[in-house]
Amino acid sequence: MEKSIAELEARGRLAKKASQKMACLLSEAKNNALKNIARSLLDNKSAILSANSQDYKEAQSSGMNTALLDRLLLTEERLEAISTDVLAVAALPDPVGEVFDMRTMPNGLLIGKKRVPMGVIAAIYESRPNVTIDIVSLCLKSGNAVILRGGKETVRSNIALARVAAEAAEHAGVPSGAIQLIESTDRSLVEHLLKMRDVIDLVIPRGGAGLINFVRDNASMPVVAGGIGVCHTYVDKSADIAKAVSIVYNAKVQRPTVCNALDTVLVHKEIAAEYLPQVAIELSKAGVEMHCDTPSMSILKKVPALKLVPAVSEDWGKEFLALIAAIKLVDSLDEALEHIATYGSGHSEAIITEDYTSAMHFLNEVDAAAVYVNASTRFTDGGQFGLGAEVGISTQKIHARGPMGLKEITSYKWIIFGNGQIRL
Amino acid sequence: MEKSIAELEARGRLAKKASQKMACLLSEAKNNALKNIARSLLDNKSAILSANSQDYKEAQSSGMNTALLDRLLLTEERLEAISTDVLAVAALPDPVGEVFDMRTMPNGLLIGKKRVPMGVIAAIYESRPNVTIDIVSLCLKSGNAVILRGGKETVRSNIALARVAAEAAEHAGVPSGAIQLIESTDRSLVEHLLKMRDVIDLVIPRGGAGLINFVRDNASMPVVAGGIGVCHTYVDKSADIAKAVSIVYNAKVQRPTVCNALDTVLVHKEIAAEYLPQVAIELSKAGVEMHCDTPSMSILKKVPALKLVPAVSEDWGKEFLALIAAIKLVDSLDEALEHIATYGSGHSEAIITEDYTSAMHFLNEVDAAAVYVNASTRFTDGGQFGLGAEVGISTQKIHARGPMGLKEITSYKWIIFGNGQIRL
Repeated sequence: MEKSIAELEARGRLAKKASQKMACLLSEAKNNALKNIARSLLDNKSAILSANSQDYKEAQSSGMNTALLDRLLLTEERLEAISTDVLAVAALPDPVGEVFDMRTMPNGLLIGKKRVPMGVIAAIYESRPNVTIDIVSLCLKSGNAVILRGGKETVRSNIALARVAAEAAEHAGVPSGAIQLIESTDRSLVEHLLKMRDVIDLVIPRGGAGLINFVRDNASMPVVAGGIGVCHTYVDKSADIAKAVSIVYNAKVQRPTVCNALDTVLVHKEIAAEYLPQVAIELSKAGVEMHCDTPSMSILKKVPALKLVPAVSEDWGKEFLALIAAIKLVDSLDEALEHIATYGSGHSEAIITEDYTSAMHFLNEVDAAAVYVNASTRFTDGGQFGLGAEVGISTQKIHARGPMGLKEITSYKWIIFGNGQIRL
Repeated sequence: MEKSIAELEARGRLAKKASQKMACLLSEAKNNALKNIARSLLDNKSAILSANSQDYKEAQSSGMNTALLDRLLLTEERLEAISTDVLAVAALPDPVGEVFDMRTMPNGLLIGKKRVPMGVIAAIYESRPNVTIDIVSLCLKSGNAVILRGGKETVRSNIALARVAAEAAEHAGVPSGAIQLIESTDRSLVEHLLKMRDVIDLVIPRGGAGLINFVRDNASMPVVAGGIGVCHTYVDKSADIAKAVSIVYNAKVQRPTVCNALDTVLVHKEIAAEYLPQVAIELSKAGVEMHCDTPSMSILKKVPALKLVPAVSEDWGKEFLALIAAIKLVDSLDEALEHIATYGSGHSEAIITEDYTSAMHFLNEVDAAAVYVNASTRFTDGGQFGLGAEVGISTQKIHARGPMGLKEITSYKWIIFGNGQIRL
């Protein structure tokens, strides 16, 4: 346990030291360490599950709701899935060492870029203990040292998981200090961590808006933040109704608790009378509560057995993370674009249209990590986008935007091969 | 003049609004605006030079030294050079709109990335007024709105330059608010600006360590910082002496006041007796003062007429920005690597060697923006690296490392063309 800031700083220096050695590890060594972690998680099953069951009992007795309790629970099956995910990361290509943009300059200098690890990554996250191993395996694969700080509800589970991973990695030749977890739940340590610019190259916060804003406000090193998704789907007047029903249904219902789920449907007034009842009936079957503006309410109130609530101004720009959708009629594509620019969080936005010009206009104008024509926003995900795995989804415009895979937690350096060149 | 924080925030909103329109400007429109700025700078020569001469006189009477006075001075010739530089930026390829990594996924989704502007960039800089137009032209070309805050010594020059540029751009169809300068020299406005995360996507500080650290400590939005270069050249035991003399001389002498100039020479002890006197005689001819560790001093004190000073511990890791070089003997390449890891600023580092294994080892191990074999660190520059122009040199590992050209002040968004796909 870090009893003091001095101990935290010592951890930071150790991570920095480890990261220098990790930058030179061959892919084979990193993959062997990952396989060792996967095996060791299963070998230490009982210790990990017993730590988790203590977390679970404490959370239960503190009155945590069932959904959250389920998120923190580890079972034998879930632990096996975590172990399998580690093997999947081992199977991904190693981003480190790629040499690109190499060219010979007029003076004969051979110059280009080589992909290198970021260095030390601090991950600050909440809730689900599988995130601990997720981040460990992605950082290890990309040659980064990692300092983890999980939520206090899962502290025993995280300690058990991180210890198993750190020991397994070390046995496989990964330098000591490459995987560290801050065990203390003292929040002031996090504040101090966020000032340790000399040893931490990047902070990744994963969690709710409170956590993310705390990190952005307090970190003095680079942050890649994201995860907050206020996602709109605009149903254009030329939309194919069947596609618009199935896409909006999928975007809202398939997994409502995640950041790429739909929050607001914007519907062109010319298609609303035909489209809205059809989609509302489907949404209603899945138990979706609809927060309607006045014009959409006047259409939908004629349909029996819907869960309708008059929309209030707070519904626009709200991430529901639940079976709730806000519905608003717009007069034009431009009004939809204006609404999205005002209320979107820059995550995922979609248009449903059969009109070529509207589709291209939407793609060009919308400023978000992922902009869709005729598809569900639920696809914004590292796996779905072909990145293999993801550390998180960035809604910033710097460094990486959208799903962040292994490459997105690397940097590059310029390498220059000369034979005596001087600048004239 | 911004009399209040409310006015500053209004400026920010105006810039944000302008940036949305700028993202859709065609290259031709941006290039026409740049050409208009280039012309307008010459048309308004007398107003600009008269504002600059007021800055100059005030700085002179406040006792500013000659070197700094020269940096802030604009002449007819310098203004013509600035205008020519704007035309050079107009001639560069436009990074915005490039579509890359496009591919069809197994479910038929066509998915890829499209390069887009960053949005609103705030640039906080010191001293030389040409930086104002430099940054304006690079931001305009890359479709970004810019909020400028220059040093107070050149406030009148900056106001004159930014007004001319903003008006010329607006006449050419660039949205109002795309180019704005904070005219007030009140520092508390900068502190507030650094919290305006909602409207500013990126802050670029350009100046000394004080300014850069102030921005990193206070900004709540992403920062790309750099410019501090503690640059080492390591002369290996297998170095070609003639190359090592000419490269070290060039790195130190060709322009000593810039960040990629040499600060410390590390010399392998086995080559020191032969190499050091030769390089010291050359450096001495250029007036370089050498701060020597004890072993190098004992070699060099036998050479007549050198400017030698015993090195103190503060000399290691110091950016001299002057005709001063620290000199240290090392026992091995590993000791040189250790020294660079401890004292380098991650900017530019070089090895002079004829040994293949040493060269590759140095390239692999050194963690810096630019790592050289047998060439002068003075090459770390956007123009020299083939980027056409540079906004600055990043010593961070996130987003961009080393010289930042036009592409490095852009972002991308994922664009997805579907035909009804939903996630299963």
